[in-house]
Amino acid sequence: MNMSSNQKYLNLLRDLVALPSVSATHRCLPEAAQLLVTTFRELGAQVTYDDTYFAPFVLAQFRSSVPDAQTLVIYNHYDVQPVEPISLWQTDPWALSEHDGKLYGRGTDDDKGNITARLTAIEDYLTEHEGHLPVNITFIIEGSEESSSQHLDEYLSKYQDQLFADLVIWESGGKNVHDVVEIFGGNKGIVTFNVDVKTAKTDLHSSLAGVVDSAAWRLTQALATLFDREGHIAVPGFYDDVAIPNQREKELVRNLPTTRNTLIQQHGLTSPLLSDKTGDDLKETLYFQPTLNIEGIQSGYLGDGVKTVLPAVASAKLEARLVPNMDPDKTLQQIKQHFQNEGFSDIVVTKTLGQPGYRSDMSDPEILRVIDITEKYYHQHPVIMPTSPGTGPMYYIHEALNAPIASLGVGYAHTLDHAPNENIRLTDYNQHIAVIKELIRSYEK
Amino acid sequence: MNMSSNQKYLNLLRDLVALPSVSATHRCLPEAAQLLVTTFRELGAQVTYDDTYFAPFVLAQFRSSVPDAQTLVIYNHYDVQPVEPISLWQTDPWALSEHDGKLYGRGTDDDKGNITARLTAIEDYLTEHEGHLPVNITFIIEGSEESSSQHLDEYLSKYQDQLFADLVIWESGGKNVHDVVEIFGGNKGIVTFNVDVKTAKTDLHSSLAGVVDSAAWRLTQALATLFDREGHIAVPGFYDDVAIPNQREKELVRNLPTTRNTLIQQHGLTSPLLSDKTGDDLKETLYFQPTLNIEGIQSGYLGDGVKTVLPAVASAKLEARLVPNMDPDKTLQQIKQHFQNEGFSDIVVTKTLGQPGYRSDMSDPEILRVIDITEKYYHQHPVIMPTSPGTGPMYYIHEALNAPIASLGVGYAHTLDHAPNENIRLTDYNQHIAVIKELIRSYEK
Repeated sequence: MNMSSNQKYLNLLRDLVALPSVSATHRCLPEAAQLLVTTFRELGAQVTYDDTYFAPFVLAQFRSSVPDAQTLVIYNHYDVQPVEPISLWQTDPWALSEHDGKLYGRGTDDDKGNITARLTAIEDYLTEHEGHLPVNITFIIEGSEESSSQHLDEYLSKYQDQLFADLVIWESGGKNVHDVVEIFGGNKGIVTFNVDVKTAKTDLHSSLAGVVDSAAWRLTQALATLFDREGHIAVPGFYDDVAIPNQREKELVRNLPTTRNTLIQQHGLTSPLLSDKTGDDLKETLYFQPTLNIEGIQSGYLGDGVKTVLPAVASAKLEARLVPNMDPDKTLQQIKQHFQNEGFSDIVVTKTLGQPGYRSDMSDPEILRVIDITEKYYHQHPVIMPTSPGTGPMYYIHEALNAPIASLGVGYAHTLDHAPNENIRLTDYNQHIAVIKELIRSYEK
Repeated sequence: MNMSSNQKYLNLLRDLVALPSVSATHRCLPEAAQLLVTTFRELGAQVTYDDTYFAPFVLAQFRSSVPDAQTLVIYNHYDVQPVEPISLWQTDPWALSEHDGKLYGRGTDDDKGNITARLTAIEDYLTEHEGHLPVNITFIIEGSEESSSQHLDEYLSKYQDQLFADLVIWESGGKNVHDVVEIFGGNKGIVTFNVDVKTAKTDLHSSLAGVVDSAAWRLTQALATLFDREGHIAVPGFYDDVAIPNQREKELVRNLPTTRNTLIQQHGLTSPLLSDKTGDDLKETLYFQPTLNIEGIQSGYLGDGVKTVLPAVASAKLEARLVPNMDPDKTLQQIKQHFQNEGFSDIVVTKTLGQPGYRSDMSDPEILRVIDITEKYYHQHPVIMPTSPGTGPMYYIHEALNAPIASLGVGYAHTLDHAPNENIRLTDYNQHIAVIKELIRSYEK
């Protein structure tokens, strides 16, 4: 490892962390994007800066001198989650600090540390190879990943002619609780929506409850119809488009270390698992089935003591996690229709966000390349996941590039993404630099 | 009307309103009670002050010089509701002020104005009759009526030997939206309880929703089982002890002016009435049937934007309004058992308050006395209600005194009890003084 490039990009990480580029509050987004533009240009990339959207996009292209070179796309984002509750941070979240071999600060793992590690790998490779790359490398860097990647699909359409790829390396990745590298090739989609009901112009005295309907009851009863007594989602058509996992995907998921007991212990679950699933059934549900979740519900009075009120308004925020083939808008329409069918035409459903899901073909030669490099570098079999149970904009990236996607990154099991005290281990950071260099080297002919 | 006594007790009302005797926050309760003790003693009552409970009780007894005189008990309270939100008051809630023939201030109607009007009537009568009363008059005044009359039942047991009555005049009453006097002789009971569920040690990432149960779903599903699809309470045994109204009670309720349309218009209802009841059915349900209401429900995240959280805790506050014969604890036990039966043994039910309901016999000669006096004084038929749809401690008072109860008072349709800008009209106040004097006079032999 080249110590000077390593330090140079750790300094960049320090400068990036110092910029509170929170997309939720639209802070410092152009500042962070411009810092990247300067850095990429200095390293010889052709950079296209586009600030016509919610947050500027940075497209940075390193050309290989090899004719017919393949193209590696690296997807990253420079925006971060808010830092609240600030009181739970043990260091200043906007000041990169090192303790016990770890780097602390907002964005160290998600996602600024991944950007600087990858830049280090490229500079090292260029230095060692007189400025030549065996593969084209294109960075697509956005600034609203933490706000559901607003306009990413529009942006990708706009630059369609310049965008092509054989492989996409995802924004982040890392090691699991057993310190084994995980590589995932997909994520779920999502549709989030508000569910509201209003039954009177103001909250009423609850003595009327015998004859006057209540928003709290309407909402509670409506939501309860979404599941049957066996815990299946009862919305007609909800499961119709679910992509059936292929044999390879099923095998990969069966090999995952997730068990009933690890879930229960890790999260302190005091309620039985849904349908008390075990083994393969549990894992297939977690990775291959859609979900329907209440993010929040609120109505009436929940302060101290008793308030004899009959609530006139009730609200809930819900989300459905979608698997490939499911369309966010179609799913939402099915839910609306279900409320109608069940006699809840007073329930108002409003979409807030939507993203389809995507799974890479984990047998694709380019995915196998990533697995092979990882295996050789770490001297262990990585855990291969056809999909994360979480959500991200992989679908849009795949639609634009038509290439498989693999996650790699600087993270570990306790990076605390989105939470106070986000951190990475320097060892993981340096290993990721080395793996990206190996990946570039793998394209040498 | 004696102008000097009228002004004297309006001054007392001013002094009482100036004391923020809020039982919810336990403020100024002894101060208000002591002010009453002094006043009653000056007027010649034998006063027993008992401060061994949450709030002091004032027992003030005026003895008739007539042998075998009957006894009239007047129940009042000196505590008031909090004044929040203070910004919505157009005057200082703790300063009695007069505008356009109305007196504004917290407690003017509920219940301090009723106390001073009744004192005015007694002083006037005593002055006009050389200090003689034709009836014993006992005031039972408590200081936690707005906090579910804590210890009232214990207090009444303690003074059982001194307490007897032929008729009880309730703390408050007044005129309806048509400016017609309403007299009610009962109120519903209530049992309030918290319903809580916890499914994990902390909120979880919602990507787990396919396999991990959520407190929000558990609570929603559990609450939904409390009603059937026709809007009847589905808790086994809930209706078993409901007191069947007699013919007189049914007739009285059928005569009430409440209609489907007045309810809808008055409260701006945008949802159909429950089971879309009309006419007698609507009124009988409102007055003679128990209710089950969600006062509030809360779980997860309801802030701005989207938070992909799977809630680990969910809470609701519920209340059941009870009709006579129903026992608060038995009802709560039925609800707990229902959750068990329906598979929700993880739902924790905690009682907060409980009070049985009570209805007077509206054919009792003492009730007819009140109706007769009211009719003659106001030259109109009062509206007679066997029960208010609301709740109060009538049951305890009746258990201790075994006498019928009738409501009379200084209120009107827009007194705004419990709300900002509580007020009474001076005309109603003076009429109540006159009616109480007529009531005393009716016991002359």
